Amino acid sequence: MGQAMNDIRALVFDVFGTVVDWRSGIAREAGPFLARHGKGDVSPERFADAWRLRYQPAMEEVRSGRRAFIRLDVLHRENLEAILKDFDIDVAKVPCAELDALNLAWHRLDPWPDVVAGLARLKSRTIIAPLSNGNIILMIDIAKRAGLGWDAILGAEVVRAYKPTPEAYLRTVDVLAMQPAEVCLVAAHNGDLAAARKCGLRTAFVPRPKEHGPGQTEDLRPEQDWDVVARDFGDLATAFGV
Amino acid sequence: MGQAMNDIRALVFDVFGTVVDWRSGIAREAGPFLARHGKGDVSPERFADAWRLRYQPAMEEVRSGRRAFIRLDVLHRENLEAILKDFDIDVAKVPCAELDALNLAWHRLDPWPDVVAGLARLKSRTIIAPLSNGNIILMIDIAKRAGLGWDAILGAEVVRAYKPTPEAYLRTVDVLAMQPAEVCLVAAHNGDLAAARKCGLRTAFVPRPKEHGPGQTEDLRPEQDWDVVARDFGDLATAFGV
Repeated sequence: MGQAMNDIRALVFDVFGTVVDWRSGIAREAGPFLARHGKGDVSPERFADAWRLRYQPAMEEVRSGRRAFIRLDVLHRENLEAILKDFDIDVAKVPCAELDALNLAWHRLDPWPDVVAGLARLKSRTIIAPLSNGNIILMIDIAKRAGLGWDAILGAEVVRAYKPTPEAYLRTVDVLAMQPAEVCLVAAHNGDLAAARKCGLRTAFVPRPKEHGPGQTEDLRPEQDWDVVARDFGDLATAFGV
Repeated sequence: MGQAMNDIRALVFDVFGTVVDWRSGIAREAGPFLARHGKGDVSPERFADAWRLRYQPAMEEVRSGRRAFIRLDVLHRENLEAILKDFDIDVAKVPCAELDALNLAWHRLDPWPDVVAGLARLKSRTIIAPLSNGNIILMIDIAKRAGLGWDAILGAEVVRAYKPTPEAYLRTVDVLAMQPAEVCLVAAHNGDLAAARKCGLRTAFVPRPKEHGPGQTEDLRPEQDWDVVARDFGDLATAFGV
């Protein structure tokens, strides 16, 4: 590990896809929901994909300035209602409380198998925190359920900006009272890392080749010479010498 | 424990005085500083008290709206320069880096002896987080050094409002996506608890009779019928059934 990596004082993590397997987690809770509404033939994974597909466009409304900052739980809830019609489910016939409950499936996502042990090792060396577009209570609930020992919950709601806008990274660096090169983003997504690098942050790529299921084609490989490329969080901890 | 307390889903904590012993911690680092600048005869505790005395007036500039929100580390640094003349130390003769280093004494405060074990027990029942006027990296550094297992760092910098304004409590409740009565403030200060109660939060008083040294006269006793009154954090955990 080079001197540049020795200078790193905080590791900040993308969460959806990098830390947790959102697709399996959402599918697990969507399955019973679909069955209850006469759609037991629909693939719950396809439902998860449809829900996630509205994620970027919803945040783009905020990033563009067309909409004031609003937390991801609210965007997820709006997106859920929006996709019901795609699956021929009549929104008017689904109790509000049932939609609220399904929306909390995002709070119950499981981490990839290497995450808990890897984070515990990394935490012994440096500050670890999510830098996710997910809001604070969403991150708290995932972490408490899974046993992720974050030192803080950072991310979009703290800095009121969604990745990949520069503000999301630079305000996080400012909150940490560090230089950009003292902060390293860990992500499974080349685009997230590219945006962080433009802001001067260090970058660590951990591929998650099953994030989008068996047919995944993107983010299988590093697309730039990221500062670290690791197989998983255990390998990442080893790269940081812990 | 009554039903009201069973409904509590998050415990949020005042930190300076309630969780950490700021006076001893600041005095410990002020002593060598004073000696280096020819003021070895000055009581480091008196220096700590003088520094702390400027805490509320500095935040009042922000609370009143006369000044935009700015993190506590900056206010502490300004206050440090301001008190040097009270102790006949020429600011111009003290290297900036030395003042920066002394300012970080606030990041190295020790918790009261009952805190680490008490928080670990409470964390098994509920979300625990600081709701302090201290900024995020200040809270991270204290927690990491002392081994406080917060589930998140909440507080003034997250909600951009200083206690005891209602916004500091109500926006924190909003971030948690809870009702005010589901959140309980733990504090050693009756004034903090009174402000939280006005916002509908639950309240737990833990006296810290040595926060201000041996001659302390205020906050020795509960001044209202707080929902919980506990001797220390161990007793608080017992009150919450963990």
